[in-house]
Amino acid sequence: MANNNQFVNQIADIETDFPQWYTDVVLKTKLVDYGPVKGTMVIRPYGYAIWENIQKELDARFKATGHTNAYFPLLIPYSFMTREAEHVEGFAPEVAVVTVGGGETLSEPLVIRPTSETIIGEMYSKWLQSYRDLPILINQWANVVRWEKTTRPFLRTSEFLWQEGHTVHATEEDAMKETLKMLGVYKEFAENCLAIPVFTGRKTEKEKFAGAVATFGMEAMMHDGKSLQAGTSHYLGQNFAKAFDIQFLDKDGTHKYGYTTSWGVSTRLIGALIMAHGDQRGLIIPPVVAPVQAILVPIAAKKEGVLEAVAALKEQLCSAGIRADSDTSDNSPGWKFNEWEMKGVPLRIELGPRDIEAGKMILVRRDTHEKIEADLSNAAETVKKLLDEIQHNLLETARKRKEERVVKAESVDELLKGVEGGNFVKAGWCGCRECEDKIKEKTAASARVIVEGEEAETCVCCGKKAKHVVLFARAY
Amino acid sequence: MANNNQFVNQIADIETDFPQWYTDVVLKTKLVDYGPVKGTMVIRPYGYAIWENIQKELDARFKATGHTNAYFPLLIPYSFMTREAEHVEGFAPEVAVVTVGGGETLSEPLVIRPTSETIIGEMYSKWLQSYRDLPILINQWANVVRWEKTTRPFLRTSEFLWQEGHTVHATEEDAMKETLKMLGVYKEFAENCLAIPVFTGRKTEKEKFAGAVATFGMEAMMHDGKSLQAGTSHYLGQNFAKAFDIQFLDKDGTHKYGYTTSWGVSTRLIGALIMAHGDQRGLIIPPVVAPVQAILVPIAAKKEGVLEAVAALKEQLCSAGIRADSDTSDNSPGWKFNEWEMKGVPLRIELGPRDIEAGKMILVRRDTHEKIEADLSNAAETVKKLLDEIQHNLLETARKRKEERVVKAESVDELLKGVEGGNFVKAGWCGCRECEDKIKEKTAASARVIVEGEEAETCVCCGKKAKHVVLFARAY
Repeated sequence: MANNNQFVNQIADIETDFPQWYTDVVLKTKLVDYGPVKGTMVIRPYGYAIWENIQKELDARFKATGHTNAYFPLLIPYSFMTREAEHVEGFAPEVAVVTVGGGETLSEPLVIRPTSETIIGEMYSKWLQSYRDLPILINQWANVVRWEKTTRPFLRTSEFLWQEGHTVHATEEDAMKETLKMLGVYKEFAENCLAIPVFTGRKTEKEKFAGAVATFGMEAMMHDGKSLQAGTSHYLGQNFAKAFDIQFLDKDGTHKYGYTTSWGVSTRLIGALIMAHGDQRGLIIPPVVAPVQAILVPIAAKKEGVLEAVAALKEQLCSAGIRADSDTSDNSPGWKFNEWEMKGVPLRIELGPRDIEAGKMILVRRDTHEKIEADLSNAAETVKKLLDEIQHNLLETARKRKEERVVKAESVDELLKGVEGGNFVKAGWCGCRECEDKIKEKTAASARVIVEGEEAETCVCCGKKAKHVVLFARAY
Repeated sequence: MANNNQFVNQIADIETDFPQWYTDVVLKTKLVDYGPVKGTMVIRPYGYAIWENIQKELDARFKATGHTNAYFPLLIPYSFMTREAEHVEGFAPEVAVVTVGGGETLSEPLVIRPTSETIIGEMYSKWLQSYRDLPILINQWANVVRWEKTTRPFLRTSEFLWQEGHTVHATEEDAMKETLKMLGVYKEFAENCLAIPVFTGRKTEKEKFAGAVATFGMEAMMHDGKSLQAGTSHYLGQNFAKAFDIQFLDKDGTHKYGYTTSWGVSTRLIGALIMAHGDQRGLIIPPVVAPVQAILVPIAAKKEGVLEAVAALKEQLCSAGIRADSDTSDNSPGWKFNEWEMKGVPLRIELGPRDIEAGKMILVRRDTHEKIEADLSNAAETVKKLLDEIQHNLLETARKRKEERVVKAESVDELLKGVEGGNFVKAGWCGCRECEDKIKEKTAASARVIVEGEEAETCVCCGKKAKHVVLFARAY
């Protein structure tokens, strides 16, 4: 097909240069821009609107599961970081440090939160008295800073936005239940809102959160077959409870340490949906989180009654709760078609004099490019139904890819061939760090999650008895 | 009246020690706690829920006036601060400075945003091309850091949450219109959501924002007759446009600098509503922003059917969009009454076996302590009506105080007597900084706003011809 789409011609080829395609698309669609400080990003209105929709959906789920929001300070005394040995080892190298405040050198340097287990632990220690106060179920929406060497908008930046849940429980069992419950919330959200099916499971020791007993992650397959860690939920045991003295008086009259969890997702999810659904024409945003779900384009806009009909239809759709907008700029219809396709709006509605006369509208799906003629009379119903279908189709397409592109490997060579072919690879693993490192070195693939309920005879690397089946992939 | 309320006895007297009353109330109701770093606060779930309601109301108003949200980086190169002379003079002394990132000393120190005119100006300079791009109407919800020496939760803290709107316009007229429009949005919000009537007007040169051409503020009268600056809207002229090269190609083919505005309100608004409405028993939260609008307290909870009836009523109210909750803890009803009064819940609903049998409930208003018996059958309607009445009554009570407590002064002594009596004082002012400083020195009152449409003969301080009538008050 000849391509006279001037926007497409500005975007690198998705199959041969996916990284450049990503950069082109996020900048040209005005989702994001580079900030003045290296490694930082500006989330522009179109990108931020996606984040607002993500927040709305997740926040409702957090509240439905009994959590409330709070806000803890940005600045953490440096000494807090050092109280949990693994935690400081993991995070100290990437913190930003404030040494001057109000014109004076501070007596103790302050760290900009890279995550808030420490400062929240300190407060929980103060607030928690008795078993009656448990569980503590608090979430925070916040910005965090982690000094990164290699950065890409949304995927890895020095500052990003996220939510971090932090909970305390009376028993190990309750805390583990919470950890897995929130992983489940993330998975359901990823599938039903972002249309991204995910693999979930426990992380290896190497890949777990610094300070956790166990980390569970969800991994999403991107267009190029690489994996993106899209969310994590940590069972922290009593590590932080002991480091921050989070104790309670139990029913039996003795003081006990609580069991804590933490879990988070970030603006990285925007990167995930771009790389999961996009195509050569640009973004495809799932309707549930799309800032604009339906874009109305007038045809022969100068003809009498066209702009009025477009305005009336927009009003009708908005009243029905659809995020509809109209493009009444001076650009040509063709230009508008291409631009809104690039911006990934799920549904385009064309309305011209002949359509209006016939009481019709033309709908064009972003996912399938299908053109549909429909009655104007019950427009909202038609649009809602189509948006549902698009949402469903995006999920099914991604699910199909996810299922087709998982292969098994019996050797490191096979594993390499698998990931080079754009696949996730299941393989046996003995459980030792040396084999994990060697696999990474030879294939650039890392252990994404441990696969539950499957067994393997031998380790793909050393040939010794396998302890787990692991899902390996190259990752963002 | 004898007071056997154990909560009230823990709160300092509101009339004789208002500052301590404030501290007692914000801590005991778990709105807020002190953070580990001096001057920082933790906004606890009950306080954060008020902020969420404030955000929801304001955000809808910003969007209805054409603004979209975005997110700009936390860290600003130090050099940006210095580009606007007044701005750096005003903010440099109170910034927190990051000098180390990722284990290395940074080549240029970074400032944690105390406000974002500079970094947003830099981005607007990059984004703005032609007059077609104007106006730019963007808001940001964010945290900011200003190193403060004397701090109090919500009122003045080293870190706080706020929104900052930043807009660019083609003409001075458009920018001034925006400045005043957003001041109007704040005023309407303060009155209709926080039930706080405000004085609005232009600030003096001394009190204006560092870098603005003109600042307009809204001032709210607190319980003790002091003023709280509850929001500001700045007309920045071309000051930041020139410092950051915010130019556009106009219709006439020439490049011109834009005119910018900025406007913000913060978590300080929570302090405002506490100090505007609270009484000796604790908080009184206006229904529109109350985390819990109606608290259900079971009477004789162990009697058959009581807890079920409470749960059913809660469900009925919640379904009708009322933020209702029930207190089914082991505490006595009396304890619960006092605790929820202290927490400022607008309406208490008591439900016992006899009430249930009679198909009745007892409602108690937090503002007037009035007890009302009402039918259970149309409970949601009754509750909604009462919440509206409480909201209205709080506003009227505050309005009455605001009107009664404004006096006029012809001399600095009279001005002093006025503010010592807990009043705002209107007085003539010649317009010079010396008189403004002298008045501050002698009365501890500052110029809150310039009063429009009123005239005075002479300056209250020097006796020369008055240029303006100014509203003076002691302020938080």
